Amino acid sequence: MSPLHPGPLARARLLTSPSVAPDVIHGLERITGRPADPAPATAPDAPFVYVGDVLPEALRTPDLLWFHSVSAGTDALLAAGPWPEGALLTRTVGRMGERIAQYTLAWMLAECQSVPEHTAQHSRSEWRRLPSELIAGQTAVIHGTGRIGSAVAGLLRACSVRTVGVSRTPRDVPAGFERVVLAGSREETAELAQARWVVSTLPLTDATELFFDEARFSAMRGAGFVNVGRGATVDMAALEAALHSGAVRRAVLDVLPDEPAGPGDRAWRLPRTVITSHSAGITADEDVVADFATCWEAFAEGRTPALAVDTRRGY
Amino acid sequence: MSPLHPGPLARARLLTSPSVAPDVIHGLERITGRPADPAPATAPDAPFVYVGDVLPEALRTPDLLWFHSVSAGTDALLAAGPWPEGALLTRTVGRMGERIAQYTLAWMLAECQSVPEHTAQHSRSEWRRLPSELIAGQTAVIHGTGRIGSAVAGLLRACSVRTVGVSRTPRDVPAGFERVVLAGSREETAELAQARWVVSTLPLTDATELFFDEARFSAMRGAGFVNVGRGATVDMAALEAALHSGAVRRAVLDVLPDEPAGPGDRAWRLPRTVITSHSAGITADEDVVADFATCWEAFAEGRTPALAVDTRRGY
Repeated sequence: MSPLHPGPLARARLLTSPSVAPDVIHGLERITGRPADPAPATAPDAPFVYVGDVLPEALRTPDLLWFHSVSAGTDALLAAGPWPEGALLTRTVGRMGERIAQYTLAWMLAECQSVPEHTAQHSRSEWRRLPSELIAGQTAVIHGTGRIGSAVAGLLRACSVRTVGVSRTPRDVPAGFERVVLAGSREETAELAQARWVVSTLPLTDATELFFDEARFSAMRGAGFVNVGRGATVDMAALEAALHSGAVRRAVLDVLPDEPAGPGDRAWRLPRTVITSHSAGITADEDVVADFATCWEAFAEGRTPALAVDTRRGY
Repeated sequence: MSPLHPGPLARARLLTSPSVAPDVIHGLERITGRPADPAPATAPDAPFVYVGDVLPEALRTPDLLWFHSVSAGTDALLAAGPWPEGALLTRTVGRMGERIAQYTLAWMLAECQSVPEHTAQHSRSEWRRLPSELIAGQTAVIHGTGRIGSAVAGLLRACSVRTVGVSRTPRDVPAGFERVVLAGSREETAELAQARWVVSTLPLTDATELFFDEARFSAMRGAGFVNVGRGATVDMAALEAALHSGAVRRAVLDVLPDEPAGPGDRAWRLPRTVITSHSAGITADEDVVADFATCWEAFAEGRTPALAVDTRRGY
């Protein structure tokens, strides 16, 4: 990925998808100093920058200089067809790491402090003491050691949880982790066996599809499984079997292979599971504008922004 | 409080209340090197140590050297009658600070991450994204800056919450707090107005009864109120009015003035409130044994244990 040259960018049109909110459009216009136009039905005949969620077929042209995604996940975008040659892709991360970390901690503590059970008792006007479990000292195995995984690990570690990262490639131990092991190694299997929690932050790529399979779930000994990554990284039949065997004690699924899940989806019927409708890492409008501005500044200075996506690796 | 002399302690009998579990009794026997006997119906005619929850009338004699309470709260114990002259009182704190801190954080995050709402949606097989709120950067005002308040503040601060303590006497800023203000000061009123959370860890004493009154609740501007201290520190009518006016956005009450609350208790009908049956700081059996051992060692070395209660102040 080479940075965009300020020259072409200075002359480019700014186009936005219909899903982009008025407040975001005003922000983009302020940053770029030009009006934002809605995406035309046919390809524009001049270089352009596009901000949106999906890339319409008509805009897959060599005139696309830069696509800024309003969300962090770009797998659907890249799966829709070959990425236009030379077009840069950046994404909105916002405070997503922080949000996903707080989501993960919230559900861990909800289980340990019996939040749903207390809520149910209250609705029956029932006074009954319930035991609690301390998360301090427990082990959380976190799959994915990038920006999101590192944010999750950092928050859990601040709460005295032992944090073990699982990475697909050898790397230094990033902030927040006490240890990082390789995916598929004996060390991973041993950590899964003693984990109280297994948290997946994995993106969806060819290499992570069905990553959580029968072998991986069987290595667990009663862990709570939290998926804040992508639904298709999980073999749902294997998860169901693990919930029945007890290898997985409880599942919190923010994501599913098929979203949105219809009322008839088998996932709703999994035992001891809660599904949270892909809410963990919601990006706010101000996140889109802030992250676009960061990328714009980087280009102006001839740098490749940290939010650029490697369109071959997929993240 | 002067420490117990090892001499009388060496000759004292060990008595336990019927509520003490067999595992605890074995632990006490191991520590003291003598058998534990159940409390007799009449006063024993020799010095004794008593471990239990309440002090039977027959044991309120000058032969009581030391009472070790199996719980942290000793207000009911001290309210039951004048404390026997010269008898030392110690209490079990265990990992109570840590437990109460995790309870508090759990309910704060449950609200910010819509845990009850997601659980309800799941039970209806309903896929609907819900917004979340970040606790990082929010202000929590914590009443009580002792051991429990400090533990709560420490955990919240680790999660980037701004922590303000309220103390009834001027003091240094204890660990975990960014700032401590005096109860009843203008600073307290200003902090209550900007607090997203107000957490009470206050013990019950003459000075804290009905501490949370109409004036204090009226100073709040939509705070979530969490009571992990004692129920009688709250004027329940004032809390109800504040929930109706919106000064209090939501209440999480681990404690009530009258416990256990019967099904007809008005507290169950408070709007936007959850009652959790005095579960926040449950002490485990191992906590009782560990804290008794700590006191025993202190006495053996001629020191007053840190877990000793000032029976005049009440904590």
